[in-house]
Parts: sequence; C-alpha cells; structure tokens
Amino acid sequence: MNFREEYNKKLTLVEDALKRIMEGYSACPPTIYKAVKYSLFAGGKRIRPVLLLTAHEMVDGDIEESMDLACGLEMIHTYSLIHDDLPAMDDDDMRRGIPTNHKVFGEGIAVLAGDSLLNMAYEVFLKNSLRYPDKIMNHIRAVSIIANAAGVHGMIAGQVVDLEMEGKPAQPEILHYIHTHKTGAMIEASLKAGLALEDAEQRAYDAISEYGKRLGLAFQIVDDILDVTGDAESMGKTPKSDEARHKVTFASVYGLEESRRMAEQLVEEAVSQLDYFGNKADFLKEIAYYTLRRRV
Amino acid sequence: MNFREEYNKKLTLVEDALKRIMEGYSACPPTIYKAVKYSLFAGGKRIRPVLLLTAHEMVDGDIEESMDLACGLEMIHTYSLIHDDLPAMDDDDMRRGIPTNHKVFGEGIAVLAGDSLLNMAYEVFLKNSLRYPDKIMNHIRAVSIIANAAGVHGMIAGQVVDLEMEGKPAQPEILHYIHTHKTGAMIEASLKAGLALEDAEQRAYDAISEYGKRLGLAFQIVDDILDVTGDAESMGKTPKSDEARHKVTFASVYGLEESRRMAEQLVEEAVSQLDYFGNKADFLKEIAYYTLRRRV
Repeated sequence: MNFREEYNKKLTLVEDALKRIMEGYSACPPTIYKAVKYSLFAGGKRIRPVLLLTAHEMVDGDIEESMDLACGLEMIHTYSLIHDDLPAMDDDDMRRGIPTNHKVFGEGIAVLAGDSLLNMAYEVFLKNSLRYPDKIMNHIRAVSIIANAAGVHGMIAGQVVDLEMEGKPAQPEILHYIHTHKTGAMIEASLKAGLALEDAEQRAYDAISEYGKRLGLAFQIVDDILDVTGDAESMGKTPKSDEARHKVTFASVYGLEESRRMAEQLVEEAVSQLDYFGNKADFLKEIAYYTLRRRV
Repeated sequence: MNFREEYNKKLTLVEDALKRIMEGYSACPPTIYKAVKYSLFAGGKRIRPVLLLTAHEMVDGDIEESMDLACGLEMIHTYSLIHDDLPAMDDDDMRRGIPTNHKVFGEGIAVLAGDSLLNMAYEVFLKNSLRYPDKIMNHIRAVSIIANAAGVHGMIAGQVVDLEMEGKPAQPEILHYIHTHKTGAMIEASLKAGLALEDAEQRAYDAISEYGKRLGLAFQIVDDILDVTGDAESMGKTPKSDEARHKVTFASVYGLEESRRMAEQLVEEAVSQLDYFGNKADFLKEIAYYTLRRRV
C-alpha cells in the first residue's frame, strides 16, 4: 500500500466509525443533530484521528480499540472550528467551501452544536473505556492527555491569545505561542494518547512528543502559506480571512520564502525524532513529508 | 446540626475545593483565568454538588472521594449559564446581581470561558478517577452518567428546544420537555453519580431517579414563580428577562397559584420516593422542602 492508499484506508475507517457513533444520537432534537452532522461531515482531513490510530499501531495496538478515541478527537477539533468561526471570534462565513455552522443554523445553535460535540467526545471516550475493564487505566490516561491538551493549558490558551492579539502588531514569540497551543497541543496529544493505550516506554513518549511538536508547527505554517498563495480559495475561506483582519500569521511575520524554509526544516527535524521506532514509523514520516506537499 | 448548618458546611467544602482546583490553572492566560473564576465564584447555591455529596454519603461513601466530581458538576452548570446568557441565546445582561460574563469580558472570551469550564470539568473528573485505581470503574460510570446528562440527550436538548420555542405559543408538553432536560437531567445525574461511586443496588438508583426527576421540576417551577413575583430582582435578573422575551414558563402557562400547587405536589412525591433509604435520606428530604421555601 502506498501512502495515499494507507491514509485513505484509515480515513474511511474513521468516517464509518463517526457515522456509527452519530447514529446513536439520532433521537436528540433534529436541529442540533443536523447542525452537529453538518460540521462533523464537512470533509475534514481527519489528521488527528489518523495520527492517533497510527501511533497506537506503532506500539502494536489494535486500532479497533483506539477508533472511538480517534473519533472523539475529531469531535473536539470540529467543535473548536465551529466556535472559532463565530462572529464574536474569527467571524468566518465559509469553511471548507461551504457556509460555516452559524451561517446555516444561526449563532445560538452553532454555540450549542460546538458544546454538543465537545461533550459528545467525552461521552464517547467514557463509554469506550468502560468496554476495556482490564485496560481502563490506560484508556483514562489517554483520555486525560487529550483533555489536558484541549483545555486552558492547551488549545483554548492558543485561541484566547489569538483572539486578544487580533489587530495588534506581529510578534514572533506570540505567534509561536498561539500555534503551539492552538494546533500543536492537540496534534501532540493525538500521538501520545495512542501510545498511552499500551504501556509504552518513556523514551517512546519523548520521541513522539518531539515529533508532534514539530509536525504541528509545520502543519500550521503550511496553512498560513496556503492562505496567502491563493490556494486559500480552494480551501473555501472567504476573502475577509486572516490577512484582511490583520491576523498574525507566519507568512506575515516571516514572509513566504522564509516560512516555507521553516516548515521544511521542522519536517526534517520531526522525522529524525522517530529513529527510536525503526521502520514502524515509516507512515508517520510520510505524514510529515505530506504536510509540505499538501495544497489544501 | 440543623438543615441550614449542614447545607452551609457542604457549601464551604465545595467552595474550598473549587478554589484549590482553580489554583492548578493559574498558569493559563490571565484573561481566561479571570473570566472563568468570575462566573464560577459568582455566588451560586451549589445545589448539584451538594446533591452529589449527599447521595454519596447516603450509600456510605466518603465525600472526600466525591468532592472533585461535585466540583466538576458545578463547572458544567456554570458553563451552561455563561453560554445561555450570550446574546445569541437568552441575551441576559445580569445574573446573580452582577453583569453576565460576556458583558464584562466580551462575547468571544465568554464563549471560550464556557468551553474552558466544560472541558475543565472532564480534566478534573479524569484526574480524580486515576487516583482510585481499585474503584476506577465506579468512577468512570459516575462520570459517564454526568456526561450523558450534560449532552444532546439531556441538558443541551433542553437548551435547543428552549431556544427554538422562544416567542412561540406556550405548550405544556414542550415546557415539560424543556425543563426535565435543561434542569432535571443534571439534577438527576448528580444524585445517580453519587450512588455509582459505590456499588448501589438497582432499587436505590430507581428511588433516587424518581426523587431527582420531581425535585428538578419543582426547582424549575419555583424559579419561574420567583421570576414573576418580583423576587426576580433580588436574583439580579434584568427586566428584559423571561416574561419580556415571551419565554414559555410554568407561571405563564399555568398561572402562579397552580404552579405553586404543582411544585408542592412534586416535592411531596419526591420525598415519598426516599423510603428505601430510611432516615439516611433525611437531608435529601429537607433539600426538597427547602426548594419550596427559597426566595432566591
């Protein structure tokens, strides 16, 4: 299987699992059910779930056991996008080529759809962990890693600083803070949670953390570059996006060429952290290189 | 100890535990730390935490073990109030005599403060459950009960229908749906979670559920009555509150006198469900009667 085939195989497993999970919620009020599904199935790359499944496989785990954790990760990611797009936050009308959640369902339902997805992730995590009584400590450790990364010490910290810096002069260290928290924390947690399901060695955690930190940052830099180089349009972002609102981005602070060079260096560094895992890490290495090739 | 003394004792334990938990978050961005604490320490009655601790005691549990669960419940309740008050939802300027979160910190931070509190509740739940490896299944079952009650089958379902019904003609069955979900689900879950920490019998769950359903509804009816009878002002609600926005309330559907009668009957029924627990249930009975006496 080449990289693309293996990625798509995992992507399909995640899509199927998310659909199965959502069927369990079909009795909830129709409006919120529709609003949640609208954003959850809006064509994301599912990078976080794929990273978790891959990390779990790498320490000889069975991905059937980690599938619900992977799905919950995507629910948390989707909630963060819905709330980020709200008028009081980034005020985006379009995402992934379709109108944002609040544009379709109204702001009130969009707030509740985000809340629903965040809470649902934990419902799914907890239910799943009860299915593995002999390994429940591992499962709860994995969920705890995700929870901490999603909170005020992780993703939300990045969102807060991002919100506060809007329209203010660009400062490289703040830009770094925003992205290592807003994007990086959850990417790193996805990988570490996969390891936590098995009794991985400390050296494995250290290696995957260093890989994750660099991958997360490279991923965000490429996002910033794509936003400027016009590929943004194919991402479905509206013209009033980042640049127009004077958001601090890597492209605006360092310029396109230097940003590109930084992303390439981060990916090389990320890949070199994975020696500990030998050829079991091949897929993670390819994911890192793919980050540089992607056009959306 | 009389009822008031015992309630205050538990209230103080909850306040202290919440403060201790928040100290663990003091390194997060100052704005969000302030915004979270502003609403979390705005003088709530802490009824849900007190119910959880009391239910746990009733099945011979040590409330030190249930304290973090009690605190997480209050975090979930507080998040729901912050989001409920947003302009896109209930659009309330005041709560508990002080300006609402978004009035002080802005809508963006208020959305994130709510998100933070919801996520933080799970961070606290998970961390706490890892401290009890021998009882972790009980702990995760308890957290799972809370998670399900907070989601789209419980509290959020009530919020969604409440939002959709605004300005529409009052229908008793919808009013009932809103309140059994928006308020009732979390009150019932608080009680059941306390039982789940110990290996309680099915009969105990059944009894506490029936009590909880009625208590939750009585509590909400009294809220509606207080909103009308002018005590609303002492609750710090703004005049544009429920009535002005044509919200469906028990008072508007049934009138004050009939609402009062319904609340009294529900409390009597609630109390009669507790026979199974003998005199261990005395405090829960007093909480039910207190619901009728309260003025705020």
